[in-house]
Amino acid sequence: MTSSYWSPVVRDLAPYVPGEQPRGLDIVKLNTNENPYPPSPRVLEAVRAAADERLRLYPPPEADDLKAVIAAHHGLEIDQVFVGNGSDEVLAHAFFALLNHGRPLLFPDLTYSFYPVYCRLYGIPWREVPLTADYAIDIADYRGDIGGIVIANPNAPTGRALPVSDIEALLASHPGVVVLVDEAYVDFGADSAIGLIARHPNLLVVQTLSKSRALAGLRVGFAAGHRELIEALDRVKNSFNSYPLDRPAIAGAIAAFADEGYFQTQRRRIIASREALVAALSGLGFEVLPSAANFLFARHPQRDGGTLFQALRGQGVLVRHFDRLRTHQFLRITVGTEAQNARLLEVLETLLTEA
Amino acid sequence: MTSSYWSPVVRDLAPYVPGEQPRGLDIVKLNTNENPYPPSPRVLEAVRAAADERLRLYPPPEADDLKAVIAAHHGLEIDQVFVGNGSDEVLAHAFFALLNHGRPLLFPDLTYSFYPVYCRLYGIPWREVPLTADYAIDIADYRGDIGGIVIANPNAPTGRALPVSDIEALLASHPGVVVLVDEAYVDFGADSAIGLIARHPNLLVVQTLSKSRALAGLRVGFAAGHRELIEALDRVKNSFNSYPLDRPAIAGAIAAFADEGYFQTQRRRIIASREALVAALSGLGFEVLPSAANFLFARHPQRDGGTLFQALRGQGVLVRHFDRLRTHQFLRITVGTEAQNARLLEVLETLLTEA
Repeated sequence: MTSSYWSPVVRDLAPYVPGEQPRGLDIVKLNTNENPYPPSPRVLEAVRAAADERLRLYPPPEADDLKAVIAAHHGLEIDQVFVGNGSDEVLAHAFFALLNHGRPLLFPDLTYSFYPVYCRLYGIPWREVPLTADYAIDIADYRGDIGGIVIANPNAPTGRALPVSDIEALLASHPGVVVLVDEAYVDFGADSAIGLIARHPNLLVVQTLSKSRALAGLRVGFAAGHRELIEALDRVKNSFNSYPLDRPAIAGAIAAFADEGYFQTQRRRIIASREALVAALSGLGFEVLPSAANFLFARHPQRDGGTLFQALRGQGVLVRHFDRLRTHQFLRITVGTEAQNARLLEVLETLLTEA
Repeated sequence: MTSSYWSPVVRDLAPYVPGEQPRGLDIVKLNTNENPYPPSPRVLEAVRAAADERLRLYPPPEADDLKAVIAAHHGLEIDQVFVGNGSDEVLAHAFFALLNHGRPLLFPDLTYSFYPVYCRLYGIPWREVPLTADYAIDIADYRGDIGGIVIANPNAPTGRALPVSDIEALLASHPGVVVLVDEAYVDFGADSAIGLIARHPNLLVVQTLSKSRALAGLRVGFAAGHRELIEALDRVKNSFNSYPLDRPAIAGAIAAFADEGYFQTQRRRIIASREALVAALSGLGFEVLPSAANFLFARHPQRDGGTLFQALRGQGVLVRHFDRLRTHQFLRITVGTEAQNARLLEVLETLLTEA
């Protein structure tokens, strides 16, 4: 479809396609990297408490109370924090506000597939830098006259993490451009680069409450960086939508940071499940990339990825399959509950012994 | 502040400045056109019910259940409806997707001050069309080789409404461009143009749940139009943020449309309060523009608008003052509860008898 009413940019958009959100309750849903456990009971209580007559009032436009909580949690000042409607919105504003300089933006060829979508939306030139043969990022490959760098750490869909020393080397070798580090999955085993903000004014770190804090349904993400970078995000946000976070989301997000014990318990539990799942999948003959995330990227030397994906789907187990060169042999499998992981392994075992 | 890290567009942004959200509870807050009454109890119940373990899951990305409810309410098909994070986000996407054609976009010189902000954000040329001497829109003034038209109906901050016949004449005389009708305040006394969608593929109507449904704190707005226009909005939205509406917001918005009785009662109550307030302000010597909204635009022939604004503020009554040519003599006063309106009148009466 096209239309003369469309702004010219619309014709060339290639929107991001999120993983399916099936309605059936008996699906083992391991396809969108959601947390298999519920959010903290204190979050649910806070969201419920926000559902009162104050909903008639606009939210505080800068969500200052939430920014203060995030700043305190990460040892930052409040003007080093930006919040948005999920990290997708935060990333969108960052691409527009900080990464559009008419020179190519660099990111890995295999990474979060929303990055080239943002580039098309805002007319940002980009260059995809191939991962190494073992699906790792080699920072030496990021060079040239560029407009910025975006690194997901841990990377998706591979799950592989970079050490903070590599991030720091990237920042130091590209002092003139912004290096955006997307830490959506960092709490599952990688080290955050937030500690580098004081020394590197070109660092923007983006995190989300969707994964490790089990709040994908509440839509809260944030960015941390030098206040000059945050000011650019604020300007774009305030030229787009004054109040991107609704009152229940602000209340729930504040409560999530207040329940540190629950957060630590749950993330450790998922890390332990991941390690058990790696061992079991390896036992079934899968090659599993080393993961610091809440998902695994795995391929079986004798089985086609697309075929396995469809066969799992037929058995009510939903994983993600990216039908592109270098990824089509892989499955991306979210770490589920112990029961979900057991069901996945049971179905895989049956599939692998058939035929 | 500026920075070499900023994308060039950021330097020229002039962000929208929303009305104050004071923290004091004893303020009579008549400055941001919020509904003075709480949302339907069924909405609060629905938001609370959504605060369960499903918050760990992403929301349905297309919010189809909400779209279906809105479509049914307005006699539309589901593919004629787009939903977003408040009508501000819906408007932003519409400016980007449908109104950026390199030719000037027309809107009134006195209207929602976010429109030129969107134009700067997306590099859309625009031309402000002066309201008539009595602060009305004359559709004959909207002509030329243009990229689109944006009309707030009722207009803000004037409160004046256009008849649907004028909207239809605009649509018919500009069949090649999109006419966006921003109906944020339509439920308080104007006629909606939604009924024209079937005959006019160039019409996009935008509404919000923030005002007449008392949900400014939940951030839900929508657009209605021909499916070709909706497709453009979907493409931009899916290139920006797959899930702009969180689970509590979707649940609350669906419940808002289910409680039609509450909606009708509350909007009639506000209309009645408005008419009483118009009479009382006129009795105090104010000139009040005819309003079809939940606010009044009023000036006093003997008193300076800025001075009155500050004096009201000093007495704990917050209204809005726009310090621009043609508006600086006016106050924009949100219709409050009967008690709030009485307090406003009491303070004004004292101020007007002083000095």
